[in-house]
Amino acid sequence: MTRDPDGPPARRRFLVQGAAAAVGALAGAARAEEAMPPGTPEWMTVPGADVGSQTYGTPSRFEADVIRNVPKGLKQYISASSRTPLQDLDGILTPNGLFYERHHGGIPDIDPARHRLMIHGLVETPLVLTMDDIRRFPSESHIHFLECSGNPSFEAIKGQTASDLVGLVSCAEWTGVRLATVLREAGLKPEAKWVVAEGADAAALTRSIPVEKCLDDALLVYSQNGERLRPQQGYPLRVLLPGFEGNMNVKWLRRLNVTAEPAYSREETAKYTDSMPDGTARQFTFVMEAKSIITRPSGTQRIVRGFNEITGIAWSGRGRIQRVEVSVDDGRTWADAALQAPVLTRALTRFRLPWSWDGTPTTIMSRAIDETGYVQPSFSDLTAVRGLKSFYHNNAIVPWRVAETGEVANGYA
Amino acid sequence: MTRDPDGPPARRRFLVQGAAAAVGALAGAARAEEAMPPGTPEWMTVPGADVGSQTYGTPSRFEADVIRNVPKGLKQYISASSRTPLQDLDGILTPNGLFYERHHGGIPDIDPARHRLMIHGLVETPLVLTMDDIRRFPSESHIHFLECSGNPSFEAIKGQTASDLVGLVSCAEWTGVRLATVLREAGLKPEAKWVVAEGADAAALTRSIPVEKCLDDALLVYSQNGERLRPQQGYPLRVLLPGFEGNMNVKWLRRLNVTAEPAYSREETAKYTDSMPDGTARQFTFVMEAKSIITRPSGTQRIVRGFNEITGIAWSGRGRIQRVEVSVDDGRTWADAALQAPVLTRALTRFRLPWSWDGTPTTIMSRAIDETGYVQPSFSDLTAVRGLKSFYHNNAIVPWRVAETGEVANGYA
Repeated sequence: MTRDPDGPPARRRFLVQGAAAAVGALAGAARAEEAMPPGTPEWMTVPGADVGSQTYGTPSRFEADVIRNVPKGLKQYISASSRTPLQDLDGILTPNGLFYERHHGGIPDIDPARHRLMIHGLVETPLVLTMDDIRRFPSESHIHFLECSGNPSFEAIKGQTASDLVGLVSCAEWTGVRLATVLREAGLKPEAKWVVAEGADAAALTRSIPVEKCLDDALLVYSQNGERLRPQQGYPLRVLLPGFEGNMNVKWLRRLNVTAEPAYSREETAKYTDSMPDGTARQFTFVMEAKSIITRPSGTQRIVRGFNEITGIAWSGRGRIQRVEVSVDDGRTWADAALQAPVLTRALTRFRLPWSWDGTPTTIMSRAIDETGYVQPSFSDLTAVRGLKSFYHNNAIVPWRVAETGEVANGYA
Repeated sequence: MTRDPDGPPARRRFLVQGAAAAVGALAGAARAEEAMPPGTPEWMTVPGADVGSQTYGTPSRFEADVIRNVPKGLKQYISASSRTPLQDLDGILTPNGLFYERHHGGIPDIDPARHRLMIHGLVETPLVLTMDDIRRFPSESHIHFLECSGNPSFEAIKGQTASDLVGLVSCAEWTGVRLATVLREAGLKPEAKWVVAEGADAAALTRSIPVEKCLDDALLVYSQNGERLRPQQGYPLRVLLPGFEGNMNVKWLRRLNVTAEPAYSREETAKYTDSMPDGTARQFTFVMEAKSIITRPSGTQRIVRGFNEITGIAWSGRGRIQRVEVSVDDGRTWADAALQAPVLTRALTRFRLPWSWDGTPTTIMSRAIDETGYVQPSFSDLTAVRGLKSFYHNNAIVPWRVAETGEVANGYA
């Protein structure tokens, strides 16, 4: 197999034997399912559905299988997750309807008119804000990814699809007010070091955020991809901490308690810590390190010989993606993929590499390098440092095996 | 009234008398609808909805009025439009479910497995492509606005809301293949000057596109905001001509006929031409000129005294927005608004300006300047050139009147 031997896409043809029919062949097509009949397709012969027949639109019925990837057979779904179908998506944005979920006490049904945010603790003026109050502050919008820290866990690298493996990451344009603006309104006392955020869900999910992050790029978010947050993503208000692990981005936010010490809550002690080989545990490992995955071709898909674009997503909690390298020979050699512009800080970055597959079985994979120079590790490099007792913060390279049939499968499995 | 007399947002407080309650006041709140009870809100006392209870999510039931703006009482809805609720949206992206609609023969229900794109006429090799073929070409993603050329028509400047006036514009991240790549695959003959695009709807909507645009930034699009196109936006395939009037971006694309002359179809002769005062008509007025509108505060909304952020959207079919100026004194003086980064070519650009309203009735408005130096005109400047016989390509400034009560209303009406 070769890496696009005919030169860059702009200068070559892509048509593949048997993939495109000439016009002449169409007229003689025997079966409707192979080619359209020579006449008019039936959807042109009658008026279509009315304008406004969907005042809030939904996808085509032919896309009914592009849905959240919900694990089957769990004992309960109150504290669980569902994944974004990454292998079916393009670009860098995740539609709100397919944004990954992770809830610890189910999804509350909050009336925004009755919701309040309390800011108290080490502040000059404790505040209770309505949603109207919050929307009166100066607003900002930024495109950022959000990722669960267990994406995948060290135990769960045997999934079939890109979604099974890394579907607990999504990306959106978020709008809200800088957390710094609201904290300044309350007035931080000098001894303020942490801000303990609490959600209005049944789990009262609680996480401690360093005050430095709160005064940096942290946002109180009320809109996602243009519209108000969905209930699954924290309606009517959530924290957004660009680049920090998902559960710290507290949803359904009701309380910010400014403190000198962290809360040492359940989700930062019993959970969301990283067990090391020596028996110690790393705590407060906030930042999601650089990562990437090829989404097409990926597990359960099938390719044909000839031209295939390799495409996927890369991201880093530390800033911009600087480079994504792709190997089509099981890691022996690497080529730079093209990055979709604009490359945004702490956002998904789409990469693409033209490839011609000659039918030889192989393994393909990508690795991300971020602007700090950090290189996404292989799973063996990662476990050499972290051991196998860890659960969270697995950012290892995902290899995809391509069989002689063109079938693509998880290279870990 | 003054323009944020206390300096930039980062250095001042925004809390307004009566808008935020201190914590002490909360404990004594008498009515639940005014403030949360001192105890636990009821949505924290029971588990919320299950993970995966929506495999394709929808907005909160409390956002049920944020829907497409469908005109009432039309004789038919087959050839009609519905508008994006701009006044309820933030940022630069439009959720697919709220993307504006304009159909000429209703919305067809197309099976992508049976859909074909034919490319014929002045080409070396006529082609019939399946959707699988099209998805095998190298892909690109770009964020661009799309706008109907009658947004609003010269007759329809009396609506109440931002959506009524300018809701036939939306913005998304589009993914597809460069039209140039597909035309190169077929091989253009030297005499090829136009590409006539035909939709697979009941109207067989047909528009002629200059070959220069086809070889520049034109795309054949199959995905929008990450997922496949919605039926309303051309599923499974549409043309995207960044900056060109909406109906040229042919939806449900089935045919590209490469020609030496335009088709002179209905939608480029009887419709979508601009009647001038001297009785002539401008034809093939492709590009949507620079435009902007304040979306908050806007018609039917109500503001209170003190701090109010003024925010809205600006766009230009000729490239990037360079500047947006806002007047809070009926056009006497203008201030530069902040532009949300990144500012992208032929995309919606969010602008924001802090403002303190002292309760005096006034009129506020915005005007966009694009990178060519073009300045969005007032309605009187526009009609001085164009007269009042025109229907399409009204990009005039939209003034909003603010009454002493804080009620905001259309300044045209």
